[in-house]
Amino acid sequence: VSDGLLSDLRRLLGAQAVASNTADYIRDSTEMQGLRGHADAVVLPDTVAQVQKLVGWCCDQRITMVPRGGGTGFAGGAVPDGGVVVCLDRLNRVRSLEPELWRMNVDAGVTTGRVQQLARENGLYYPPDPGAAEQSQIGGNIACNAGGPHSFKYGVTRDWITGVEAVVAGGDLIQAGGAMRKDVAAYDLRSLFAGSEGTLGIITGAWLRLIPAPDVQMPVVAAYPDRPAGVSAIRRVFGSGLRSATLEYLDAGALAAAGATFPGGLPERAAFLVIAEADGTQAEADSLASELDEALTPDANYVHVVRSIGDQRELWRWRSGISFAVRAQRGGKMSEDIVVPVDRLEEALELGERAGAAFGLATCSWGHAGDGNLHATFLIDPASANEVSRAAQAADELFRGAIALGGSVSGEHGLGLVKRHQLARQLTAPELRLQFLIKKSFDPDNLFNPHKKLPEPQN
Amino acid sequence: VSDGLLSDLRRLLGAQAVASNTADYIRDSTEMQGLRGHADAVVLPDTVAQVQKLVGWCCDQRITMVPRGGGTGFAGGAVPDGGVVVCLDRLNRVRSLEPELWRMNVDAGVTTGRVQQLARENGLYYPPDPGAAEQSQIGGNIACNAGGPHSFKYGVTRDWITGVEAVVAGGDLIQAGGAMRKDVAAYDLRSLFAGSEGTLGIITGAWLRLIPAPDVQMPVVAAYPDRPAGVSAIRRVFGSGLRSATLEYLDAGALAAAGATFPGGLPERAAFLVIAEADGTQAEADSLASELDEALTPDANYVHVVRSIGDQRELWRWRSGISFAVRAQRGGKMSEDIVVPVDRLEEALELGERAGAAFGLATCSWGHAGDGNLHATFLIDPASANEVSRAAQAADELFRGAIALGGSVSGEHGLGLVKRHQLARQLTAPELRLQFLIKKSFDPDNLFNPHKKLPEPQN
Repeated sequence: VSDGLLSDLRRLLGAQAVASNTADYIRDSTEMQGLRGHADAVVLPDTVAQVQKLVGWCCDQRITMVPRGGGTGFAGGAVPDGGVVVCLDRLNRVRSLEPELWRMNVDAGVTTGRVQQLARENGLYYPPDPGAAEQSQIGGNIACNAGGPHSFKYGVTRDWITGVEAVVAGGDLIQAGGAMRKDVAAYDLRSLFAGSEGTLGIITGAWLRLIPAPDVQMPVVAAYPDRPAGVSAIRRVFGSGLRSATLEYLDAGALAAAGATFPGGLPERAAFLVIAEADGTQAEADSLASELDEALTPDANYVHVVRSIGDQRELWRWRSGISFAVRAQRGGKMSEDIVVPVDRLEEALELGERAGAAFGLATCSWGHAGDGNLHATFLIDPASANEVSRAAQAADELFRGAIALGGSVSGEHGLGLVKRHQLARQLTAPELRLQFLIKKSFDPDNLFNPHKKLPEPQN
Repeated sequence: VSDGLLSDLRRLLGAQAVASNTADYIRDSTEMQGLRGHADAVVLPDTVAQVQKLVGWCCDQRITMVPRGGGTGFAGGAVPDGGVVVCLDRLNRVRSLEPELWRMNVDAGVTTGRVQQLARENGLYYPPDPGAAEQSQIGGNIACNAGGPHSFKYGVTRDWITGVEAVVAGGDLIQAGGAMRKDVAAYDLRSLFAGSEGTLGIITGAWLRLIPAPDVQMPVVAAYPDRPAGVSAIRRVFGSGLRSATLEYLDAGALAAAGATFPGGLPERAAFLVIAEADGTQAEADSLASELDEALTPDANYVHVVRSIGDQRELWRWRSGISFAVRAQRGGKMSEDIVVPVDRLEEALELGERAGAAFGLATCSWGHAGDGNLHATFLIDPASANEVSRAAQAADELFRGAIALGGSVSGEHGLGLVKRHQLARQLTAPELRLQFLIKKSFDPDNLFNPHKKLPEPQN
């Protein structure tokens, strides 16, 4: 099949739009669990018209398509099981940037980091900050409804897009929303694409909303000798009504992996770390930082307001390296981003530890405590089929527990390939039925990222 | 039909759940255009189980249902064309209020005002503030994705719900999201219900997200001798990067209707009013208010920072009475909430005036300038079929213009009965097709609020 396919695609889109080998496009960051797929072809369209042409042709030929952004996903959402990988790397134009109107219109392949930087250079702020900003792309961020530390105050990607452009079945180009800041005329397809994981169509562009940048973003870091003390501190931030921009945590396992490189060093008995952040003008940030300091201080063995810009950067750079530090422990990891109502945080933390223990795996956990969003992690050697299998069983336990706590199996990574069967557990039969009907409405022939997000239909 | 229907409904839900007459339930605020419908029956379920029973029975019998919240809509969304009106008034329990977790879970029939007040009493803030807060209900707010002045900084209703509970076809109870603050497992049905206008099912409950209340909300009001000066001032607020909580406007016509009661009085030559607002701690609000003052001052013939709480209340009470003052001019009005990209604001203002002039109608306009969301209004005598018809033609011109400016025919009121045909103009054929498929997925027999939101199918 593949040879004929490649010549067909070259004829259709030009030789330069068809990758000569597929090796770099059959994995994403789920590789940390040893996950790789296979592709019949990889195309890199560089215009929306090319995407339309491609999708129209693939639909005619009944060829499946796997949209691919930066490849930084943790759920195998971009891992192909045959078909054509549609890589958005070359669709990377900033279509317009209007700082005086607080908005930007970009191709789907523009990286998150570039959006953040362009905003900053113009005195504005694009708050969503999933990790790997230099690789991850806006289209992929929308497809996963990506979050990050600052989602606690500022919300997830969906909250920052006023419009989405996508190519859907048959090659039709559609637009949901646009440059306007409000719109309730149609059903909200813009939000439906947020978190759709490439299963409804291929996102080709987005209109982003920006806000004036806070002058100062001042983290307040606190360490605790045990988990209960740390969780109580998080509850005190809520209880004191302090609008922290972030409310991150690291547990003892995460600190064991990453604590040694914590800027300035941590006390020996640090077993739970909290990172809050005060933002606004200098005066606002100073005032909130001092209130956060007070709320975080009881039972803490370390509290530090990070005042210098250099130290602030260093802190977040360290924070964004946690995933790698954890992975370095055993070569691989399975990180599951369960989310629970925030009052169930401590129970959710226990869940991960118990699940790991039950299957003989070391665990650790960090993430977005204020949103009840954990990256509950099992450390594995990705080359060991036995460990991968035990981790999958432990994760299954974890998901069961998260659902029982009134939570969800994913807060920001999506279900992709690896968690899709959990949806049948999380949703009731009528809820699941509606999910399949939505998929069918957009993709009647199941050609867009098949075997992702939704479980296999039962009938 | 109706007599048998009433006894059936009494048997099904109990006599007290069936209203003895329908007169109060066949109109909403679109009555200002003379719009009334007719209903075969009105039921007032007081539990979710009753809603399920009712919907299951109506679906079996192929009887249409019109969900009704506070009846404050401006698009005829709650105006029945026969069938059963499902009034949510008695489904009005606050299921839980957890101030220390910044959240509330309510029945759909709880009024917006009660939610706002409960939040306030607990040091918290629920920002959406559509008008008529004492009558409008959370379920209706979700159904219209209601906004209001503070949506400029804080977003619309969709941004404040973490979960929606609804009864869908067959009487199935579904939940999308819940108490958790993030969730990307399933397609985002929560957002799909926001703005669904009762056409996908009956919303029975919601989980609301709250934030710590700002200590101070300090309006800054400025008046200008003409529209260009006022629009320039609005642009300066954006251009100066000032994060005002509101950015409201009133044009000369709205000031002619309501200006005489403006608290403290306005200068004679006031032809355009802007209401910004600085919020936060006292220090934050003071600092932002002074920056807003500076940005609004050039060309203004009146600028006033409203400092006392009494004056602040009086200002917003005046603001919320504008609709009534405008209506009082001729007994009725047709207000259309078009929205445009904010740089097209002045052109959109002109559109309304030109459309009115073309059909010999007095016009005025006010609304949410920062969101490009106008309440472009034609003054009419609702008893005059001729005026109503001319206003409808003028509105049609207005919609055509808004769409041509890259905008939408509705920012926060929805399409209901009166604007639904505009959707075929605003969307492309493939976009419209997806809208019908979504409706069909939820409501294959077209029993939920038929003839609302979507135009009649073409085939």
